[in-house]
Amino acid sequence: MAPQYAPSLRSRLAPLLLFLQTGFIIIYAFYIQIESDVKVDGTNFSNFYPEFQDVNAMVILGFGFLCTFLVRYGFSGSGFNLLVAVMATQWAIILNGIESWYYRGKIRVDLRSLVVAEMCTASALISIGAVLGKTNPVHLVLIALLEVSGFVLNEWLLQTLLTVRPLNSIMLLHIFGAFFGLMVTWILHRKGSGQRFEKEKFDSKTGLFSMLGTVFLWMFWPSFNSVLVDNRTPVRKLGAVCSTYLALAVSAVTAAAVSVLSSPKGKLNLIHIQSCILAGGVAVGVSISVVHQPWEAMIIGFIAAILSTIGFQYLKIHMLLAFQCHDTCSSTLSTHGLPGLLGWLAHFLLQIKDCDDHTMAVQFAVFHICTLLNTIAVSLSMGIITGLLLKWNVWRPPQNKKCFDDQAFWEFPHLAVRK
Amino acid sequence: MAPQYAPSLRSRLAPLLLFLQTGFIIIYAFYIQIESDVKVDGTNFSNFYPEFQDVNAMVILGFGFLCTFLVRYGFSGSGFNLLVAVMATQWAIILNGIESWYYRGKIRVDLRSLVVAEMCTASALISIGAVLGKTNPVHLVLIALLEVSGFVLNEWLLQTLLTVRPLNSIMLLHIFGAFFGLMVTWILHRKGSGQRFEKEKFDSKTGLFSMLGTVFLWMFWPSFNSVLVDNRTPVRKLGAVCSTYLALAVSAVTAAAVSVLSSPKGKLNLIHIQSCILAGGVAVGVSISVVHQPWEAMIIGFIAAILSTIGFQYLKIHMLLAFQCHDTCSSTLSTHGLPGLLGWLAHFLLQIKDCDDHTMAVQFAVFHICTLLNTIAVSLSMGIITGLLLKWNVWRPPQNKKCFDDQAFWEFPHLAVRK
Amino acid sequence: MAPQYAPSLRSRLAPLLLFLQTGFIIIYAFYIQIESDVKVDGTNFSNFYPEFQDVNAMVILGFGFLCTFLVRYGFSGSGFNLLVAVMATQWAIILNGIESWYYRGKIRVDLRSLVVAEMCTASALISIGAVLGKTNPVHLVLIALLEVSGFVLNEWLLQTLLTVRPLNSIMLLHIFGAFFGLMVTWILHRKGSGQRFEKEKFDSKTGLFSMLGTVFLWMFWPSFNSVLVDNRTPVRKLGAVCSTYLALAVSAVTAAAVSVLSSPKGKLNLIHIQSCILAGGVAVGVSISVVHQPWEAMIIGFIAAILSTIGFQYLKIHMLLAFQCHDTCSSTLSTHGLPGLLGWLAHFLLQIKDCDDHTMAVQFAVFHICTLLNTIAVSLSMGIITGLLLKWNVWRPPQNKKCFDDQAFWEFPHLAVRK
Repeated sequence: MAPQYAPSLRSRLAPLLLFLQTGFIIIYAFYIQIESDVKVDGTNFSNFYPEFQDVNAMVILGFGFLCTFLVRYGFSGSGFNLLVAVMATQWAIILNGIESWYYRGKIRVDLRSLVVAEMCTASALISIGAVLGKTNPVHLVLIALLEVSGFVLNEWLLQTLLTVRPLNSIMLLHIFGAFFGLMVTWILHRKGSGQRFEKEKFDSKTGLFSMLGTVFLWMFWPSFNSVLVDNRTPVRKLGAVCSTYLALAVSAVTAAAVSVLSSPKGKLNLIHIQSCILAGGVAVGVSISVVHQPWEAMIIGFIAAILSTIGFQYLKIHMLLAFQCHDTCSSTLSTHGLPGLLGWLAHFLLQIKDCDDHTMAVQFAVFHICTLLNTIAVSLSMGIITGLLLKWNVWRPPQNKKCFDDQAFWEFPHLAVRK
Repeated sequence: MAPQYAPSLRSRLAPLLLFLQTGFIIIYAFYIQIESDVKVDGTNFSNFYPEFQDVNAMVILGFGFLCTFLVRYGFSGSGFNLLVAVMATQWAIILNGIESWYYRGKIRVDLRSLVVAEMCTASALISIGAVLGKTNPVHLVLIALLEVSGFVLNEWLLQTLLTVRPLNSIMLLHIFGAFFGLMVTWILHRKGSGQRFEKEKFDSKTGLFSMLGTVFLWMFWPSFNSVLVDNRTPVRKLGAVCSTYLALAVSAVTAAAVSVLSSPKGKLNLIHIQSCILAGGVAVGVSISVVHQPWEAMIIGFIAAILSTIGFQYLKIHMLLAFQCHDTCSSTLSTHGLPGLLGWLAHFLLQIKDCDDHTMAVQFAVFHICTLLNTIAVSLSMGIITGLLLKWNVWRPPQNKKCFDDQAFWEFPHLAVRK
Repeated sequence: MAPQYAPSLRSRLAPLLLFLQTGFIIIYAFYIQIESDVKVDGTNFSNFYPEFQDVNAMVILGFGFLCTFLVRYGFSGSGFNLLVAVMATQWAIILNGIESWYYRGKIRVDLRSLVVAEMCTASALISIGAVLGKTNPVHLVLIALLEVSGFVLNEWLLQTLLTVRPLNSIMLLHIFGAFFGLMVTWILHRKGSGQRFEKEKFDSKTGLFSMLGTVFLWMFWPSFNSVLVDNRTPVRKLGAVCSTYLALAVSAVTAAAVSVLSSPKGKLNLIHIQSCILAGGVAVGVSISVVHQPWEAMIIGFIAAILSTIGFQYLKIHMLLAFQCHDTCSSTLSTHGLPGLLGWLAHFLLQIKDCDDHTMAVQFAVFHICTLLNTIAVSLSMGIITGLLLKWNVWRPPQNKKCFDDQAFWEFPHLAVRK
């Protein structure tokens, strides 16, 4: 029997959305101004727009369809992703502009700030992958807003305290999103999810929809990593694109080989392929500002894919049993967390290698380690705060038997019933 | 029992297509010339091409997959859309070039004229959404050609009689397409469609294909609204992109909230989400030349989504019972018609607000109202002419029981049968 | 009963992939260098990147999803395509750079060389369409590497012996891929494939996934044909885009008409539509350097679609019975082979027409015929070598009853079983 009424949506989601949206419109009316700033970094509209659209496609279509693999949760996967993405992006534009508002009284919006906002959103979407299906959309919107706030706070801390460059601090989004998501799913752990949920399954068609999302992410990842590289140095931009492309290529090959080797039946695992071919893009992204040679990117991609595939195979069940972390998309830790840490390490090693001076190397090492610790600390603490807030019953979490089921949230007036 | 033979295709569609296509080739051979016109508006190939491809993706993939939601009509939805789109685009290039042919003897084709032609096509695809499934492809091709003719006629009237700027007159495509489509479906009304057609249903997989089409339209709508803005003013172009993006974001949030509030079960309705998140893009598009501030776009998006969702919920059944207008995609009136009218009104108010001079304001008001009336008049009269022409039995309309069924038009030699 | 173990993957594929990938990384470490070469042809990063992404989308998403139409082979279709594409691209970058390595000691990589490598890959993916489902992934990787080697060899022969321009020699990829693929599938012919394989079927959902791939190829084909046209002549580039667009439009209309006329039931055939609407793009691509007028492109598209549709209808079964060539995607000969030859012929005729001088015309004719013969000779001989190598039982070809079945290669731990 399908649930007849969805109390959490009528009494929680709709007022929340209307309240937040009205608030955003009021803030935008007073403080936001569309303004192009061609001179700052040589970006002009026509050059930047295609890359903006690639990132947009990754966030809306890529992440959205990646989440359609659950056989009875496809509408929620793609629909809630869109909803959460647009809320988070509007919120991130405001937060990222606070500094500019403080000094100039206005927040400037151009394509670059849209892209930065979408990257903050991507960080939230990574976290949401861990709790998908076990939460209602009210939870998801709250997670996204708090996660974006935490991420912007972390960025601000890194840039002011540790003088990390914006590009480097934004690319830590994978590490931030992964730890935040794990913390939230750990706190929201439900009894009875030791065994698999009844409806946590995929079929051959939903697997293909999910493959579509993966392929979109895979194709446009070079844009994701290169979009914020300074436009006045086309050589650096070209380097970022080619490095990412090669790292992704190596990841895809390596993930397939390791998936076969680590499988008891000696077969490929679709979920491995879908998650782990992206590991190279994540790892190279985190270290994009110091990767200069193709082979560096390829070796990073190679190790990232091995880490990711093995992490996937052995950590998922271990995390669930030992740490009570149930991770729906399974990609939070193994696609974003481990390769992100590897990318941080690669950045560390490549930068140290380039330092002639011992003192400078030590100084860089201290700063770089502080960057990571700061990110993880903010991520974990914001994750704990968010998790505790969401544990509150006022948000009406779905019952276990209604998890991973579209019927809890969607009505289907003219669904074809298969007899 | 599947129908064994499709008389309308062999004896009507194939000769029609071959006749028209041969005619087009002959016209193109004598009068069409590929020629770039860099100096006119600062457009150069590399800057314009990505936006052209975005519009192309919307017309071919976006509209095509939006129509795959019918469970047994997916091949027709996407296949006929492609067929109709390419016919209409070829025809629109010719019609749009008549003036240039008159003065210079040749019709110039460049990326800009392809984009304009695809926008005329989009207008036809909006209309076709209303009659999909109840017609055969011969009908669809005829509708598209007549609709494009009417739209180009309307544009010519607006530009010569009322000196409306090309950008503003093209953006009325949503209003034109909506009224044209309603008129055609009203005249083609069938007895017995008061109750729902037997096969007018979707399932969870076709819903996802349709979601894919929606997401494509949603993502690339900023390109659709900005592509014809003059390239020499990158600030205006940036403004068009950011405004449309924000309006779409607000629409998506608002549509979800209103969908929940207006549903008796308090749940989300997939069809609402798929249609109404686009309302903001439509409304801002119609008023794109006067929207300068983000909050203007956001308020337009907010009202458009409310209008669209409520229109969807209450008007659809009312239109069917009271006016005998059966609208397959349900998006004709509520996604394009109402938000289009709202956009017209927003244009009106924003322009009046900017007028210092009382006389100028009155003059603008008269012109602007005439623009709308002219568009609706041409749209309704072309719709009536088209509808009457199609009612003629010579086109062999499908029987009621074969409506919404791919098997009437497609053969499946190696279909896997589910036992 | 599903096969419990996939010996070919564990003992063949994984070591092969790891071995090749490690080898590639070592070669890249010593010889590859990312370097932009703005001055050579006026290409700069921002102008070229969107077209690169279009070609990337065609190779990864377009070809990949085109192969998902087999109802139980969708994961293999899209997954193996990705795997093969990235191996072939890495290999093609090395092979294309041998000359530069010989003279300068280094191989330069930029966006242009990535695009050229992806085009070599496209040639391999065309061949693979012919043997899909009857081979294991080890075969596919070997086919791709040998095919790319042969293609680069052919290009080198054409450019040094016959001084063919690079653009023209690369565009022969359709002819090369088609003959290579036919040769391989002929040699790998299995007894018992005279009747159709048990699982060689599609259903309405996999048909739509395949439609998605087709639409991606169709949309971005103008980029595929224009990407290598010299950026310093935007008029030529615009001409390539518009010509390809018009040829594809004419193809789509003509293919639909001919499909109806050639079908015994007078209906449309989905597979015709999916393959034959692309014929115009293939044919115009091969002759892109001499097509200057839109009507030339349209007539080429018209004839290509007729050839392709009729070839599809009558040749497929004839090839299977008379020549024992079983072609899975059926598109090898009729989408790429015949239209490719037509394009070659069109190039021939258009060039002859432009020659004022009789001697020059004869000289061109001899060279042009030699170009074709050389391509076909290299293609056939490399195809034979590859086929014979793959016939070797050491690669453990799948048994007949496991053909076209994902379960031979993929494990599905949480598949939803339909009761």
